[in-house]
Amino acid sequence: MSAEADGRYMRLALALGARGLGGCWPNPAVGCVLVKDGRIVGRGWTQPGGRPHAEVRALAQAGAAARGATAYVSLEPCAHHGKTPPCAEALVAAGVARVVTALEDPDPRVAGRGHALLRAAGIAVTEGIEAAAAERGHRGFLTRVRQGRPMMTLKLAASLDGRIATASGESQWITGPEARRRVHALRLAHDAVLVGGGTARADDPQLTVRGLGDVAQPVRLIAARRLDLPQGGRLAESVAAGPLWLLHDPGQTKQVASDYWQGLGARLIPVAAEGRQLDPAAMLAALGAAGLTRVFCEGGGALGASLLAAGLVDELVVIAAGLALGAEGRPALGALGIGALAEAPRFRLVESAPAGGDVMMRWEAA
Amino acid sequence: MSAEADGRYMRLALALGARGLGGCWPNPAVGCVLVKDGRIVGRGWTQPGGRPHAEVRALAQAGAAARGATAYVSLEPCAHHGKTPPCAEALVAAGVARVVTALEDPDPRVAGRGHALLRAAGIAVTEGIEAAAAERGHRGFLTRVRQGRPMMTLKLAASLDGRIATASGESQWITGPEARRRVHALRLAHDAVLVGGGTARADDPQLTVRGLGDVAQPVRLIAARRLDLPQGGRLAESVAAGPLWLLHDPGQTKQVASDYWQGLGARLIPVAAEGRQLDPAAMLAALGAAGLTRVFCEGGGALGASLLAAGLVDELVVIAAGLALGAEGRPALGALGIGALAEAPRFRLVESAPAGGDVMMRWEAA
Repeated sequence: MSAEADGRYMRLALALGARGLGGCWPNPAVGCVLVKDGRIVGRGWTQPGGRPHAEVRALAQAGAAARGATAYVSLEPCAHHGKTPPCAEALVAAGVARVVTALEDPDPRVAGRGHALLRAAGIAVTEGIEAAAAERGHRGFLTRVRQGRPMMTLKLAASLDGRIATASGESQWITGPEARRRVHALRLAHDAVLVGGGTARADDPQLTVRGLGDVAQPVRLIAARRLDLPQGGRLAESVAAGPLWLLHDPGQTKQVASDYWQGLGARLIPVAAEGRQLDPAAMLAALGAAGLTRVFCEGGGALGASLLAAGLVDELVVIAAGLALGAEGRPALGALGIGALAEAPRFRLVESAPAGGDVMMRWEAA
Repeated sequence: MSAEADGRYMRLALALGARGLGGCWPNPAVGCVLVKDGRIVGRGWTQPGGRPHAEVRALAQAGAAARGATAYVSLEPCAHHGKTPPCAEALVAAGVARVVTALEDPDPRVAGRGHALLRAAGIAVTEGIEAAAAERGHRGFLTRVRQGRPMMTLKLAASLDGRIATASGESQWITGPEARRRVHALRLAHDAVLVGGGTARADDPQLTVRGLGDVAQPVRLIAARRLDLPQGGRLAESVAAGPLWLLHDPGQTKQVASDYWQGLGARLIPVAAEGRQLDPAAMLAALGAAGLTRVFCEGGGALGASLLAAGLVDELVVIAAGLALGAEGRPALGALGIGALAEAPRFRLVESAPAGGDVMMRWEAA
């Protein structure tokens, strides 16, 4: 197989794997393509909840055609016996002739053992194909394994001068319907959606994914130091719509508030506060420990600024809407405490494109 | 000639005409293409200073081949005897068979007389080809004829959260070299570059076009109510680099400041102040009376906001740089005095594209 074809099939495996993003945490969203005699005989990706794995799905689709095929897998196949037998063993049993992977799985239970198991069975293994794209595609999983925290995407949807509301707090709508629809799709591609307590009090948002059919809702996260959230409103009424996790400092929370939200079925996650905000690193460590790999933060400005100042923002989604609100409008970000320009957190452009009447940009930490 | 070919040649004429933007005020930047038997036999555009006109250049290039040709002109040919004979007469004398135009020239000295002169000479005339593109291309000229003021382009070059400097005023560099190079090209495509007095005091900028070869410099405009500008600095030393016009309120200006800047060769333009700023409508009327058709405003935030609040910004050039500065940074725009979201000035996206590591967007007033 040519290097060109290897790259092409691996990009397909990565694209298939991306379908699982948001729905298979704490597992990686892997894609697998089985190719025999230049024809694709099986395709699979990690299923909702994390099982079955991509390789198992692709092998089931290929059936007997898997014998002698090449398997393109966007991450090293697992080698440990968990709820199901390891995928490396399944590939051996199916008789594939060659396995091409993009990355070694840094999970200490795998970490090269999958590749070794395949080679020991006489299978040709090629590693590192489309490694850079796979690092990006698996960033959430990799960040959790390597740093113990989820990948953080911060959304800034603002006017051309960086404002998210008028002085009186009016914000519906700054961006247009197409950009808002894409934001719902972004929520769905993350394990969880996060807002700060101020935003929750001001907007009382549902934080659910809407307008995209019958989908598994991402976890809704609210960082509210004192659990001072609107009781009896939209959020409280939508508890059944999907998991609701509330991050708070138990030392600053009244028992009546804890009882109210736990009584409704919300999960409370204790995090130490740092001044008037929850400690961002402690918050992300708690979310990593809970299994989350990809978190989508939608503000407000104080929470976004605390994550940026702590160097915890991996990607920025910026939506520029075609209007100006002026300096009296509410800023997209709170204070960062920057003394000199050289201290500013910098981002590298990934892509930019119109979204309806707005412009949508993706940036990643430089 | 097919409508498809008419459109194609007219778009070429418009592209040629755009080469004259910034250099031929108060004249329109017209383009002309002469086509005979499916071949282009002449091309021309309004020359620096406004003469010769596009048609005269194209006819000179075509010579005898102009006889029987079709002339595509991006604006109705002039019909009045000014410094030179009218272009409509030149087209008749050259024997062209057909003239295609994009727009009628609203200049009261033309206003249909050019088309009438051609028709009276037996030439077939088609009007309104690519009219929308021509409205945009000739916006500066048309705005001056119709409203007595130049078209205003406002540049906002800011961090992802809409900040143009740190709290201490550090701003070099927020955008990258490619975006800065494009800003110099934009200066060149305007008749004049405008900044407010605060920016002039803070940065003492030269406002010249640099890095683009030996070019005719646009007029440099500074709106400084009291002529309170740094004496003896970069700006003062660069007076000879190109025209420097200072807009000020004579009632608030000390004689010593007037004498200093006039002594250096700057042109002083009186404009009444409105509170702590020059009245933006009066300022633009004065610039229109002085012949300017296209002004490129580069800030600061107070001047940009006063132009936006007065509804005087026709185009916005927004450059988003990949960094965040936080709420303590200096805002791209001052206060707009907006009560409700419905009052915000709105803009329609024209184009957006990466410029080096930044994103450059063009918006026009909605």
